[in-house]
Amino acid sequence: MSYGNKNVELKNWIRDIPDFPIPGVLFRDISPLLQNPEAFNFAAQKIGESTSLATIDSFVGVESRGFILASFMAAKFHKGFIPLRKAGKLPPPVHSEKYLLEYGSAELEIAPGHGRVMIVDDVLATGGTLQAAINLTKKAGFEVEQVAVLINLTFLNKMTFKNRPVFSAIQY
Amino acid sequence: MSYGNKNVELKNWIRDIPDFPIPGVLFRDISPLLQNPEAFNFAAQKIGESTSLATIDSFVGVESRGFILASFMAAKFHKGFIPLRKAGKLPPPVHSEKYLLEYGSAELEIAPGHGRVMIVDDVLATGGTLQAAINLTKKAGFEVEQVAVLINLTFLNKMTFKNRPVFSAIQY
Repeated sequence: MSYGNKNVELKNWIRDIPDFPIPGVLFRDISPLLQNPEAFNFAAQKIGESTSLATIDSFVGVESRGFILASFMAAKFHKGFIPLRKAGKLPPPVHSEKYLLEYGSAELEIAPGHGRVMIVDDVLATGGTLQAAINLTKKAGFEVEQVAVLINLTFLNKMTFKNRPVFSAIQY
Repeated sequence: MSYGNKNVELKNWIRDIPDFPIPGVLFRDISPLLQNPEAFNFAAQKIGESTSLATIDSFVGVESRGFILASFMAAKFHKGFIPLRKAGKLPPPVHSEKYLLEYGSAELEIAPGHGRVMIVDDVLATGGTLQAAINLTKKAGFEVEQVAVLINLTFLNKMTFKNRPVFSAIQY
C-alpha cells in the first residue's frame, strides 16, 4: 500500500492566516492537509514511525482537534482510540487534571485504564495542555510511550519528552 | 485484510450509564468501542458500505465526537477529512448555521468547498444538530451523498435522508 509513503512537502498543505483568532497571531490552518488523503497519510506515517508501533495499544487524542489525528492513527495502524476530554463530558469514573492557560485555567478528563499509549495533538504551542495531558494519562493508569503533534511551534516552547523535543511532523 | 470484516456484536462494546449527564437520561458510552480496533473497524466498515464509496471525496465530522468517526473513516477509506466546527473556531472564510437545542441555540461553521461528502456523527438523538450540519454543508458548496451515525436513538427522531432513515451502525 503506497499511502503514507510518497514524499509530501507537508508545509504546502498548511494555510497561514494572519491575525486569527486575534490581531498579531499567525494561525496555522491544518484544514488543507486534513482534506488531502496523501498529505494526511504521510504525516500520520511520519508520526507512527517516531516510535516502535508494536509497543502501542492505543492513541490518546486531546479534545477536540487532537481527536482528528488520534482517530486517523488508530484506523491506519489498527490500534485503539482513547479520548481525553474537556471536563464534564465523559461519564464517571474519570481522572481529571487542571492546568493554567495564558488567561484562566482549564481541566481535562480521561477514563481510567491501562496499556501503552501515544498521546497526540494537532499543535504544540506553549505546551500547557500537552503536559497536562501527559500527567493525566499517567495518573489514569496508562503507560505513555510517545507524545507527538502535527505541528510544533518551536519558538513558543522547549518542551521535551523522554529527554528529546516532542516529536512533530512539521516545525515552525 | 480482515479488519472490519469479522462480525462483531457492536452493542457489546457500548456501555450504558444511567443518569448521565442528568438524572433520567441513559447515556450510551461509545468509549469501549473506540478503544477496540476490531469493533471500531467493523462499525466503520458497515457505515462505509451504506453508500457507494467511489462517489465520496471526503468525510465531514461534526465537532467534537463526530471528528472521531469521520477521521477514522478518512484513514480507512483513503478520503479527505473536513471539520464542521462550533462557531468561532475556524478561520475565515466560513459559512455558518444557527439551530435550536432543547435549551437555547447553537451555531456550526464550515469552510466553503466542493466535492461529494458523507456527513457523520456519533449519536443521532432529536436530529437538530445533524439537520443543521446537512443544511450548512450544502450551503457551503458540497454535495451531501450520505449521512450516517454510529448510534441512532430511534425513539427520539423520525429523521430521514434521501427518504430513508439516517443510516446507523447501532440502533436503540
